[in-house]
Amino acid sequence: MKLLVINPNISDSVSKLIGDEARRAASAGTEITMLTAPFGVAYIETRFEALIGAYAAANLVAEHWHGHDAVIIAAFGDPGVPGIREVLDIPVVGLTEAALMSACLLGNRFSIVAISRRIRAWYRETVEHSGLIGRLASIRSLEEPLRDIGRVQDDHAGQLKVLCAAAVEEDGADVIILAGAPLAGLARTLPGEITVPVVDGVSSAVRHAETLVGLRPGVARAGSFAPPPAKANAGLTAPMQELLRRTGAADSG
Amino acid sequence: MKLLVINPNISDSVSKLIGDEARRAASAGTEITMLTAPFGVAYIETRFEALIGAYAAANLVAEHWHGHDAVIIAAFGDPGVPGIREVLDIPVVGLTEAALMSACLLGNRFSIVAISRRIRAWYRETVEHSGLIGRLASIRSLEEPLRDIGRVQDDHAGQLKVLCAAAVEEDGADVIILAGAPLAGLARTLPGEITVPVVDGVSSAVRHAETLVGLRPGVARAGSFAPPPAKANAGLTAPMQELLRRTGAADSG
Amino acid sequence: MKLLVINPNISDSVSKLIGDEARRAASAGTEITMLTAPFGVAYIETRFEALIGAYAAANLVAEHWHGHDAVIIAAFGDPGVPGIREVLDIPVVGLTEAALMSACLLGNRFSIVAISRRIRAWYRETVEHSGLIGRLASIRSLEEPLRDIGRVQDDHAGQLKVLCAAAVEEDGADVIILAGAPLAGLARTLPGEITVPVVDGVSSAVRHAETLVGLRPGVARAGSFAPPPAKANAGLTAPMQELLRRTGAADSG
Amino acid sequence: MKLLVINPNISDSVSKLIGDEARRAASAGTEITMLTAPFGVAYIETRFEALIGAYAAANLVAEHWHGHDAVIIAAFGDPGVPGIREVLDIPVVGLTEAALMSACLLGNRFSIVAISRRIRAWYRETVEHSGLIGRLASIRSLEEPLRDIGRVQDDHAGQLKVLCAAAVEEDGADVIILAGAPLAGLARTLPGEITVPVVDGVSSAVRHAETLVGLRPGVARAGSFAPPPAKANAGLTAPMQELLRRTGAADSG
Amino acid sequence: MKLLVINPNISDSVSKLIGDEARRAASAGTEITMLTAPFGVAYIETRFEALIGAYAAANLVAEHWHGHDAVIIAAFGDPGVPGIREVLDIPVVGLTEAALMSACLLGNRFSIVAISRRIRAWYRETVEHSGLIGRLASIRSLEEPLRDIGRVQDDHAGQLKVLCAAAVEEDGADVIILAGAPLAGLARTLPGEITVPVVDGVSSAVRHAETLVGLRPGVARAGSFAPPPAKANAGLTAPMQELLRRTGAADSG
Amino acid sequence: MKLLVINPNISDSVSKLIGDEARRAASAGTEITMLTAPFGVAYIETRFEALIGAYAAANLVAEHWHGHDAVIIAAFGDPGVPGIREVLDIPVVGLTEAALMSACLLGNRFSIVAISRRIRAWYRETVEHSGLIGRLASIRSLEEPLRDIGRVQDDHAGQLKVLCAAAVEEDGADVIILAGAPLAGLARTLPGEITVPVVDGVSSAVRHAETLVGLRPGVARAGSFAPPPAKANAGLTAPMQELLRRTGAADSG
Repeated sequence: MKLLVINPNISDSVSKLIGDEARRAASAGTEITMLTAPFGVAYIETRFEALIGAYAAANLVAEHWHGHDAVIIAAFGDPGVPGIREVLDIPVVGLTEAALMSACLLGNRFSIVAISRRIRAWYRETVEHSGLIGRLASIRSLEEPLRDIGRVQDDHAGQLKVLCAAAVEEDGADVIILAGAPLAGLARTLPGEITVPVVDGVSSAVRHAETLVGLRPGVARAGSFAPPPAKANAGLTAPMQELLRRTGAADSG
Repeated sequence: MKLLVINPNISDSVSKLIGDEARRAASAGTEITMLTAPFGVAYIETRFEALIGAYAAANLVAEHWHGHDAVIIAAFGDPGVPGIREVLDIPVVGLTEAALMSACLLGNRFSIVAISRRIRAWYRETVEHSGLIGRLASIRSLEEPLRDIGRVQDDHAGQLKVLCAAAVEEDGADVIILAGAPLAGLARTLPGEITVPVVDGVSSAVRHAETLVGLRPGVARAGSFAPPPAKANAGLTAPMQELLRRTGAADSG
Repeated sequence: MKLLVINPNISDSVSKLIGDEARRAASAGTEITMLTAPFGVAYIETRFEALIGAYAAANLVAEHWHGHDAVIIAAFGDPGVPGIREVLDIPVVGLTEAALMSACLLGNRFSIVAISRRIRAWYRETVEHSGLIGRLASIRSLEEPLRDIGRVQDDHAGQLKVLCAAAVEEDGADVIILAGAPLAGLARTLPGEITVPVVDGVSSAVRHAETLVGLRPGVARAGSFAPPPAKANAGLTAPMQELLRRTGAADSG
Repeated sequence: MKLLVINPNISDSVSKLIGDEARRAASAGTEITMLTAPFGVAYIETRFEALIGAYAAANLVAEHWHGHDAVIIAAFGDPGVPGIREVLDIPVVGLTEAALMSACLLGNRFSIVAISRRIRAWYRETVEHSGLIGRLASIRSLEEPLRDIGRVQDDHAGQLKVLCAAAVEEDGADVIILAGAPLAGLARTLPGEITVPVVDGVSSAVRHAETLVGLRPGVARAGSFAPPPAKANAGLTAPMQELLRRTGAADSG
Repeated sequence: MKLLVINPNISDSVSKLIGDEARRAASAGTEITMLTAPFGVAYIETRFEALIGAYAAANLVAEHWHGHDAVIIAAFGDPGVPGIREVLDIPVVGLTEAALMSACLLGNRFSIVAISRRIRAWYRETVEHSGLIGRLASIRSLEEPLRDIGRVQDDHAGQLKVLCAAAVEEDGADVIILAGAPLAGLARTLPGEITVPVVDGVSSAVRHAETLVGLRPGVARAGSFAPPPAKANAGLTAPMQELLRRTGAADSG
Repeated sequence: MKLLVINPNISDSVSKLIGDEARRAASAGTEITMLTAPFGVAYIETRFEALIGAYAAANLVAEHWHGHDAVIIAAFGDPGVPGIREVLDIPVVGLTEAALMSACLLGNRFSIVAISRRIRAWYRETVEHSGLIGRLASIRSLEEPLRDIGRVQDDHAGQLKVLCAAAVEEDGADVIILAGAPLAGLARTLPGEITVPVVDGVSSAVRHAETLVGLRPGVARAGSFAPPPAKANAGLTAPMQELLRRTGAADSG
């Protein structure tokens, strides 16, 4: 099985973290193609940055999806995921939705631990859009500016553990989600130190992508995830145009 | 007052409809700059098309916002609006949110009348994201393929009236929203024929943008609509880079 | 354009504040008729007081609406607004709904800053009834008894600013709503000092009323905002009886 | 025990129905004082009519509550109930909330069967305000104009049974609420003919009022149902002024 | 009237508290049969314990319900109530739902005061399942381990009063619910000392059960509370088998 | 890896379907232990039957969980899952939650296709308790009584396809969930014939259980899924007593 993992941002150091964790999480026989966005920002904290990341992800996917069995958009907040899901007939998985699904199978209410104050509003909206806001116990975050996006785990390990403990003790979390690609892999090293189950997006996304490939649920040829109806377009790359030509046979929204 | 009105799609015929209606709706002394996206699709029905439109809108805004008092993103579904709102210190208004606000001041529950079956799921999600799903009576749509996106009003006038009547009689709508830029202006001509108030996105957006300029509510220098925190970027146009340099002074998400 | 602005309470000093702010907010050419309730209480903090204010407002409107283009019920909490909207064929706007609509176009989550502890429950219910409770970040209020309802802004300016700052920093507000007619006009003077956009009810209501008049959305002749069906009444003033005679032509609730 | 039952409308024929059913439903030793509003409309179908009924009810209660153990506001939609509850230190019960509570103890989802199309929107809002909209299976209603509000049960018995059956078979109702004072008593005669439990407002309100008196839960001296804080008033009847003088000792909203 | 009151746990000391309070709360002429589960745990704090209590309650009810007019399952959290309601044609009432209904007739928002930290999650889910989570102001609890489940009221009276006061002052509660069978009767002794109305489950359940018997709402022969459709079973006690033979005549879920 | 799969009902024919599908869905190296409840009913359609199934499942799990890596409770509706999750330190997965998680990664809104009218209310409540009711497009079901619970797929294949098509065309489903253990395996054979992705509970549960084992998220030693606090018990089997002795080290609910 081949999974295409897209970092919708330009940080090679974060791609390295994601790729390493994706390979560790993958089952035997699963191959990971890890790609970094050629344009965009260092990491996504806001809606505007997500808008850029979504477009970068779409273009990368358009160019590289052939030959893969599933696609992972590897930024918390899932930029572009719902749209990209429409145009491919292979599974597309985002980090947030993957982590939420893992968390919901381990407990009732979950807290998200995040890397910056600013990022919390965007994460909250992502959870709202999933329909699971009623199970969100809290979002807690680091407060200081990050020195190096590729070294957040090392620089802030102690504070991250304090945030997890507070989420359990004060907010009623049954499960902790370590959020954001820069925390990829941290969930594997923490469980012994946290009193509730801990999950993250990258490992969840890899496993859930494998599951969706394995289940062979079939492809959307109708409904709102069928390919967009045919219409004129302009100014797009050839791979993007190709995606738009995969028009849905049926139109029953 | 100068309003920048962005059609995030490539259809000049729809831009013509939007621009004409925007000028009719504007107060004396309001000037309209009407721009059409140089890349993208003919009109947006799906999440993938919205993703493209959002990026096209962001780039157009980045290049042209100087000298304007407010920006209108003139596609129902409001592609890119929350993100673009973060990076400008002038008001940014989308057609959906504008029409919803008008409708909510005229009655309790509203129905949306739309141009295609497929577009309904995207509109429904837009209403959900606004928090107003509890006031949505229904979304009804034309069922047949559109011959010409610039002539929907003429080709389908009778059917659109039937949809409005059904929304009132069967779904309990207090107000009708005629949705989608291709229906711009139709709300002005229908009221006599529909038994409840009728609003649309373009005229609502123009008026609400004028109001926001007039109220001078101040600019977000903190909170989740302050400009994104400074970070590295790559591969973006100069105007986009300039927007990203407008970094928030405070960081209190 | 002529707007009828109703203070549903008996405080002339508050009517003065409202009227002054309404005139400042109004577009050139808009005339304001400002009326004070002849019976009722000094200002509304509770459901019982709102019940009285609603009836006082209805009677004032019944007597004076002729010759106006729209009506504003100028108490936060919108006493009587939904009912009065049914019996008039001109727009009727409340302060709360007007401020909420402005706030929703400026950010995602809003906080309300209010003049007393007791008033918070009533405001919370008003927001719940609007369907927008999911976007309410918090309601914060002054804690001490008010010395003079007409001088709240002067007596408590410093505390009000502290409340605004806490709503942004601690509650995640993107926008502040200064609530209650006694704070009319304060929003205009604060923006420089608050880090997010600030709106209030009176100026929002005046502008939105102008917009609704301008949009000419048509009148409800069916649905739940058509005039009440004909039935016997007794013991009402002549103007109230006249309103009840404006019976809906259609009955399609 | 003495219960004050207020018909907030002017229809003596409906008061007769309510009073008869209240007496049948009451426990031995419970006395019913039945009063009809001296001003208002024949029956309430809309928000404007409810606004009038609320004020009429408040005035009647103010004049007559002394010597009673609890008050029932006997119109579906509960006009004035939350407000009146604030100013009395005896229980106040509305027909809708009483019927909802009975229904919720008999099943999960309930349907409301009502006397007119127009009345449905007002009932729906009443259920929304109770927080129980998620358990509302449907609201169904008679479609034709009523010949005589005091004889709805006789004129429309067959249709009402058809509506109940449809609510069970098509809408998934576990319990039926027969709504509106004009249907008082019908629930007692129908059960044999309907396949799910049937409740109504009058009998539920009488029994629940007795329960609240019996439980002696204590009086609100703080919180949002304590009496309104002291403030100036004008133009009110002496009994209304007396109610407003019952000012809350504590103010902790 | 005869009420069957089931303690789904094995604590005789708690059954004593429940039975005493049930008899005090009952109307003249109401007889109480008080039974204690022969298997299970001392008291329920978690979902697993509730699962056991539900089965114990079902078996007790199956054996003993004949000759009674209604059944009360006397543990907060209402273990087994929805299921048991399906198989009996007499009313079945749980402590939580009974207390919620009382509270909702006395104010808008309620707080629950409970006997242990751990129990809070289960109570929260019970309120969520009732649809009334929007009216829950808070759940507060004792923090220390309980010395003796039959003497909680005596051992912790002072702390319980502090929790009630905090719920009113800090959380906005209009009403307090003293939760859990071990607190049975405490609500009767506290009102003078708490500034808002106080209710509990046992007395509410007894009174509401009497009401449901008195209203004669009829039996569910269709809908989701009709008896389960006939099907094979095995390994159940004879009384449980008898309950399962009471198969619904109609099957219209 | 060893998975313990529990049929909480007594039907060996259904256990055969479940076991076969579980083995087909499992990864290489995963072993399935399939057990059938020794007491209970043929299949679960109602809350009362679920109450029995939950207790049967708990007892089976208590006796047999040693030596397994995860547990699957193989009835739609997830009887006993939240409780059993508390007492084990290995993952516990229910069919409904597993299918919902798969569906949520494939589209936005899902429909459930079920085997009987009566079962729909129970499924609806299960979805409500998951927090995902906002994404439920519809529940559709077979209408006729089932001849043989082990042969539903063969007897009703055509009707099941019609229900799937209606869910897509009329209800707006993006994904179909084939619900109930008797439909185990059908999802694998249908995709070619249905126009949207199709998932079921058994295969989803097997794959998600494998994922949770692989992620090693850690065990709940605090929060509401830690083992229940120590307390007296009586009348339980030795394995059940053993589960209750696994008391949580920390108590921070």
